[in-house]
Amino acid sequence: MNASNTTELMHTLGQQALAASRLMAKASVAAKAQALRRLAALLREAGEPLALENAKDLERARANGLAEPMVDRLKLTPKVIETAAQGCEQLAAMPDIIGELMGMRQMPSGIRVGQMRVPIGVFGMIYESRPNVTIEAASLAIKSGNAAILRGGSEAIDSNRALAALVQRALIDAGLPADAVQLVPTTDRAAVGQLIAMPQYVDVIIPRGGKGLIERISAEAKVPVIKHLDGNCHTYVDDPCDIALAVKVTDNAKTQKYSPCNATESLLVARGVAKDFLPKIGAVFAAKGVEMRACPESKALLAGVAGATLVDASEQDWFEEYLAPVISIKLVDGVDEAIAHINRYSSHHTDAILTTDHGHAQRFLREVDSASVMVNASTRFADGFEYGLGAEIGISTDKFHARGPVGVEGLTSLKYVVLGEGEVRG
Amino acid sequence: MNASNTTELMHTLGQQALAASRLMAKASVAAKAQALRRLAALLREAGEPLALENAKDLERARANGLAEPMVDRLKLTPKVIETAAQGCEQLAAMPDIIGELMGMRQMPSGIRVGQMRVPIGVFGMIYESRPNVTIEAASLAIKSGNAAILRGGSEAIDSNRALAALVQRALIDAGLPADAVQLVPTTDRAAVGQLIAMPQYVDVIIPRGGKGLIERISAEAKVPVIKHLDGNCHTYVDDPCDIALAVKVTDNAKTQKYSPCNATESLLVARGVAKDFLPKIGAVFAAKGVEMRACPESKALLAGVAGATLVDASEQDWFEEYLAPVISIKLVDGVDEAIAHINRYSSHHTDAILTTDHGHAQRFLREVDSASVMVNASTRFADGFEYGLGAEIGISTDKFHARGPVGVEGLTSLKYVVLGEGEVRG
Repeated sequence: MNASNTTELMHTLGQQALAASRLMAKASVAAKAQALRRLAALLREAGEPLALENAKDLERARANGLAEPMVDRLKLTPKVIETAAQGCEQLAAMPDIIGELMGMRQMPSGIRVGQMRVPIGVFGMIYESRPNVTIEAASLAIKSGNAAILRGGSEAIDSNRALAALVQRALIDAGLPADAVQLVPTTDRAAVGQLIAMPQYVDVIIPRGGKGLIERISAEAKVPVIKHLDGNCHTYVDDPCDIALAVKVTDNAKTQKYSPCNATESLLVARGVAKDFLPKIGAVFAAKGVEMRACPESKALLAGVAGATLVDASEQDWFEEYLAPVISIKLVDGVDEAIAHINRYSSHHTDAILTTDHGHAQRFLREVDSASVMVNASTRFADGFEYGLGAEIGISTDKFHARGPVGVEGLTSLKYVVLGEGEVRG
Repeated sequence: MNASNTTELMHTLGQQALAASRLMAKASVAAKAQALRRLAALLREAGEPLALENAKDLERARANGLAEPMVDRLKLTPKVIETAAQGCEQLAAMPDIIGELMGMRQMPSGIRVGQMRVPIGVFGMIYESRPNVTIEAASLAIKSGNAAILRGGSEAIDSNRALAALVQRALIDAGLPADAVQLVPTTDRAAVGQLIAMPQYVDVIIPRGGKGLIERISAEAKVPVIKHLDGNCHTYVDDPCDIALAVKVTDNAKTQKYSPCNATESLLVARGVAKDFLPKIGAVFAAKGVEMRACPESKALLAGVAGATLVDASEQDWFEEYLAPVISIKLVDGVDEAIAHINRYSSHHTDAILTTDHGHAQRFLREVDSASVMVNASTRFADGFEYGLGAEIGISTDKFHARGPVGVEGLTSLKYVVLGEGEVRG
């Protein structure tokens, strides 16, 4: 497909999305719920035809020598499909927030003023080669009353086409416009450049993927971007704290899974509890093969731990998102130094304090400038499902518009509603 | 000042603003209120020294042949100063929303999750040559716990320097950092280019001024922009409606003031009431010298109005923001056509329906895609003070982050707060 064809195609998708967004904005709660339930049913019934399309992607991926973990993410196993179907049903069962009217108050002039929650309009989503994300994005678009243009990774194109067809059938069956969810049908890279530069049709872009990709998209986009950059998350073990709780939570925050963005990458320990705490958590890390990049003081306290992999931390380590069995460790004087360190080095994603001191907890919550701030909980909880959002389209490390896990509400805006009885301005 | 000096200057301002923003974010409610009240007192005491600085601007403006209405906007009259002082006191008296914790609920895992309202951080404001805006922006920065870098129009530089000095004195007297409000001390244009391209220091830019300026800033900014583009506002007179109310409200919406962005620029009239309504409003407009750019049908109905200035409306008229005694007029079938017309031609600022039909009112409120939607009220009410926001830093025609009049809340974001008792993810 040549460049002008791609431009034309994307403009057509944009026009169709805009038209569909008007209908979605006024769609009934019942119709949206029906579409989601129908989609769940269609996914469960998809069977052989969907499996055949998925097999094409898998075959091509292996022929192209894709690494096996990447191939795994392409697989539409019965479990992946069932999880996606359940996600649609959960969204259908959640209260519909579109049209919610809030804060209606009478002003001295006599007018009553409040705000109504409405869809954003059209969002464009650019994501990695995981076909289940197609269903997550589509179901969030339906629930939030938006139209979406989806651009999935090219390795998943056949699976995505088959899934998008199911989504469009569910929309039609519920009396909603099929164009409310459109998949970019080409793997042409120029389509991404177009998608992020059509402010006349697209209100916001949600990119998922590596930091480089997201930075490039943010730099080139002509519309707002809900950005998820890196997750350099901290766990700070305060003085005073419950040492057993601190060991359990720090262990979970680092080792329950290494690859998620909400895994802890840096451990700060108050000097007053370090002698007690560090050998204990060091033993856990040593047993699980977690490399420790430690400041000189913490390294000394960890020196006696059998089997520990200890490395001198460099300045760069305090900035690093390892996404691996590696953690940086630093001693601090107390909550002041911890807050200052986090505000300097954190990526403003998720940071936690483990403490028994009420004042320290309050100061940490208020002063740490991150999307999620936690007391006595694992950073791994920073997640749309764990926060009760029902679904998550991404985690925003921006302060603007949406911050932290982004669910249905992050895909809406508030407009002012004024009710009068003929009031005029004097 | 040469380019590299300006770059250095702006980076210094940025660093200082960032440092001040950390202190402002944790400032007490009492200190912020004290700074605002102190600023009000300093404004009232400013007297001769402030008048002398203002006189320099006025003299230079007249020497440069600035038009008299522009010179008027530069004037710091006792009334302008008193209004600014009262604005500061009103903000001081309003509830402080920073630190507000909302929606705290327990999740199945045991953690409790809610959201805390926090300042955005640092905002940059670029505005026209009206020195009172310096005080409005400064007082909103203080109340919202942000730091601000202000770049006012060069014609007002001496007045702005004097006012910024009062602001900094008020901050210091309240124990807050002086750098929380900094004025760009140079009129060098390169400073604007720098201010909008320092994402490491500045979280959001708020430009005020002509559409061209705002479009240019939006295109070049490396940070989010709270945009206020044009206000092509509609009043739709429905069938059925209260004709006397419709005449009164339409008159106010168009003629109370011609220059504000919330003045009605286009009048839509349902065919069923046009014969009754149009001659009445036409007589009002004719008496006030308002030119009517009418569709053929409405022109025919207005033909008998004595002294009316009637012009054939062109397609371009439906898009136009006149900011003048001119209004476009179009007949429509009813609420469906009115909504479709508005969603096509409106600038999504403010649109009103005048009706006695509940169903029509509800559909208009829900389906018109504008920042403010109104029933039986003048579009002139779209304003931060009229909406009870206490103050207004601008009116956003964006859907993203803030929409409509932007007050203290629009300068904040929500971060997630998680309270646990040692929960870990399974």
